[in-house]
Amino acid sequence: MRMNRRTAIGLAATGAVGAATTAALVAQGPESHPVAAGQHGSAAAVPFYGDRQAGITTPMQDHLHFVAFDVVTTKREQLVDLLQTWTAAAARMTAGLDAGTLGAVGGAPEAPPDDTGEALGLPPSGLTLTVGFGPSLFRDAAGKDRFGIADRRPEALQELPRFPGDAIEAGISGGDLCVQACANDPQVAVHAVRNLARLGMGVVSVRWSQLGFGRTSATSRAQATPRNLFGFKDGTRNLKAEETAALDEHLWVPGADGPAWMVGGTYAVVRKIRMLVETWDRTSLTEQEAIVGRTKGEGGPLGRTNEFDEADFALQGADGEPAIGEVAHIRLAHPSNNQGARLLRRGYNFVDGSDGLGRLNAGLFFISYQRHPGRQFVPVQQKLARHDVMNEYIRHVSTGVYACPPGVRAADEHWGATLFG
Amino acid sequence: MRMNRRTAIGLAATGAVGAATTAALVAQGPESHPVAAGQHGSAAAVPFYGDRQAGITTPMQDHLHFVAFDVVTTKREQLVDLLQTWTAAAARMTAGLDAGTLGAVGGAPEAPPDDTGEALGLPPSGLTLTVGFGPSLFRDAAGKDRFGIADRRPEALQELPRFPGDAIEAGISGGDLCVQACANDPQVAVHAVRNLARLGMGVVSVRWSQLGFGRTSATSRAQATPRNLFGFKDGTRNLKAEETAALDEHLWVPGADGPAWMVGGTYAVVRKIRMLVETWDRTSLTEQEAIVGRTKGEGGPLGRTNEFDEADFALQGADGEPAIGEVAHIRLAHPSNNQGARLLRRGYNFVDGSDGLGRLNAGLFFISYQRHPGRQFVPVQQKLARHDVMNEYIRHVSTGVYACPPGVRAADEHWGATLFG
Ligand code: HEM
Ligand code: HEM
Repeated sequence: MRMNRRTAIGLAATGAVGAATTAALVAQGPESHPVAAGQHGSAAAVPFYGDRQAGITTPMQDHLHFVAFDVVTTKREQLVDLLQTWTAAAARMTAGLDAGTLGAVGGAPEAPPDDTGEALGLPPSGLTLTVGFGPSLFRDAAGKDRFGIADRRPEALQELPRFPGDAIEAGISGGDLCVQACANDPQVAVHAVRNLARLGMGVVSVRWSQLGFGRTSATSRAQATPRNLFGFKDGTRNLKAEETAALDEHLWVPGADGPAWMVGGTYAVVRKIRMLVETWDRTSLTEQEAIVGRTKGEGGPLGRTNEFDEADFALQGADGEPAIGEVAHIRLAHPSNNQGARLLRRGYNFVDGSDGLGRLNAGLFFISYQRHPGRQFVPVQQKLARHDVMNEYIRHVSTGVYACPPGVRAADEHWGATLFG
Repeated sequence: MRMNRRTAIGLAATGAVGAATTAALVAQGPESHPVAAGQHGSAAAVPFYGDRQAGITTPMQDHLHFVAFDVVTTKREQLVDLLQTWTAAAARMTAGLDAGTLGAVGGAPEAPPDDTGEALGLPPSGLTLTVGFGPSLFRDAAGKDRFGIADRRPEALQELPRFPGDAIEAGISGGDLCVQACANDPQVAVHAVRNLARLGMGVVSVRWSQLGFGRTSATSRAQATPRNLFGFKDGTRNLKAEETAALDEHLWVPGADGPAWMVGGTYAVVRKIRMLVETWDRTSLTEQEAIVGRTKGEGGPLGRTNEFDEADFALQGADGEPAIGEVAHIRLAHPSNNQGARLLRRGYNFVDGSDGLGRLNAGLFFISYQRHPGRQFVPVQQKLARHDVMNEYIRHVSTGVYACPPGVRAADEHWGATLFG
């Protein structure tokens, strides 16, 4: 039986949907359907419970609602309680159920509903909810260990350094906690974030949030490579779900790295990158392709033909110059120039209206997952920030880094279980 | 043959796609598929050419990118030229082709491409582009008749009055021209607006723009009623495409109204309405339903059962009070309380991140089409602004009114043909 919120209302009314039922429903979670560019993603559910959090190597959905929270309580129990409540709600919502057992129209009519209702009747839509903990959760800006976890902060979880050219706005950066909500229907992603925010009232406060669409990566070989707002295929050489050995090497925190509570987890880096699309659009095709190091149509590396051909950085053109320039984006970012470092990119395009100066406020909401930001994202971005000609067309305006714990395996575990013990 | 941008590249390279071909392709434009809530809209094309502009009574798509432009030239010919260029690009893009005949990867490599590329390979996705002219196009704020059309301004095209409670921001209001881009893929809607902006460089400048998702109305009886961010079904009693007599009475400008250039056109009112969803979510189900005048789950009028039951405003509850309160939204907005006035609503939900105060910056981007705003939108909104209890939970933050000319019937006509003669 595939169950959606509409069916759930009936069951909730008869008291038939409890935590155990939810777990059972979620455990039988359907297969994930690969998504091709220009084809809408699946309406089915992605399993919530598992050794790894969903929303990382699971196929990219069409829409993102990313949210970062500040914790406003100083009471550890309240925070742990909320993480428990959130986990239960996340298990339900990812299965296509209401956030709470009474639902949007159940419960006492004189009480506020325990779901906000805008996803009533909508299918699970591939919803994934992925949680992360920021450095400030372990020790706040004033150096205070609010929740008695300062000594559990992973060595790998450091605030990112300031990179050359950064134009970071503090109000849309950082946060004690983050949740990446991805779904094939934006209403479902927005509904999930909003209900988490509602459940968190008094304990957390929304610090910033961002909507995205259209994907700027593929996380599976079965997904056609989508395009970013520079019009180029993005994600061709992404770390993909099928590369299981590489995932172990570059993505998931192994026992050897520790701390114990992060084993099987990973680290998220987010960067909101404004793209000056109007300037880009006045640049010649040759120049655009030289900046990226790939052709615009097919997406093949310069000097070669097909999208998935290996880049040949030694190749020279008729003029004796390298086919892929010394400061082309794909050369600078290539593992061979970065001690073998690879990233799992999982970003989205965004348009936040216009900027009041006649330009669209558009760009790429970059998200990468990696085993150790300081050895992967940071050195690559150091290189890009210094040399990438693309910098003339982009501005990094927000930044965040978060420790994403391993998955919740069953209904008696929760998002904070490994961290708070 | 259904043609997408990928096929088009090949054809463009061989020179096979000219204006005539485009027109032919568009004329054979496929059927439109009705969209149910929770089901993704069709990837097919909606015909561009016709007596009426598409994007009004055609089925609502899943995504919106609305843009308003200021005209920055004072030369009438430049403006008319742009309207011609835009119309050709709109005919192409709605058919799933590149904005220009050379395309994103055709043309001279040392020139900027004549399409920005991010929709390469994507199907038409139901894209519609609907143009409107604001009052300031006819006479600017300084009273100047920049383009020699002041005497062509329709009597019905007046700036909207200030309503009680309005919190209008000038920077996201008005504009000389507007384009409503709707599509079932946000990347396709964004691509269209961006290419129109690109083509308009030096002639127009983006004043403001807004993304929306999820629909807050149905425009056809075949569309299931979607939900707004208060969690209620929205669009139940909307003016629908099937009500052909009512469309003639309430929507399309008849010969009797004039001016001649607007016959077969209509007027758009847009209002960006911020919804204080956090406050709403703390309100009881009873109170929410009383404010709207309908049940949250089924969406039936209070005191009756099913969504499409007629509201009975005389009905009393056991307590002797009216089942639908005196100031319930659906009573205040009902045609029987507004000299029979009806609107075709075609709005979208929006979330613009958060507001820096711990709240989502969410709401409803209200769009209504009508034959005469002063006799339809304005009196209804006067009543709502004064009496609607919903006002405690909403703020109107932007406003615009635009004259939308009749449709472009063939490739030798253009968006400005009736106005500029
Ligand atoms: C708006 C900003 C950016 C744009 C438009 C962009 C665009 C692209 C494109 C078109 C490709 C080639 C296709 C592919 O393999 O995915 C690519 C590759 C790549 N990018 Fe970016 N990128 C941006 C920012 C970044 C950042 C901030 C990083 C990390 C610090 C990054 C790391 C990479 C990596 C690792 C590759 C693959 C290189 C290879 O192995 O060939 N990019 N990017
Ligand atoms: C955020 C603001 C608003 C919300 C949440 C909202 C919500 C609703 C809902 C839930 C309904 C009932 C279902 C339906 O028939 O569509 C409705 C009906 C209606 N609304 Fe609104 N509305 C809003 C603003 C407006 C505005 C600004 C106008 C016009 C000035 C308007 C005009 C109408 C009309 C004409 C109806 C149908 C009344 C009838 O014939 O029964 N609404 N609205």
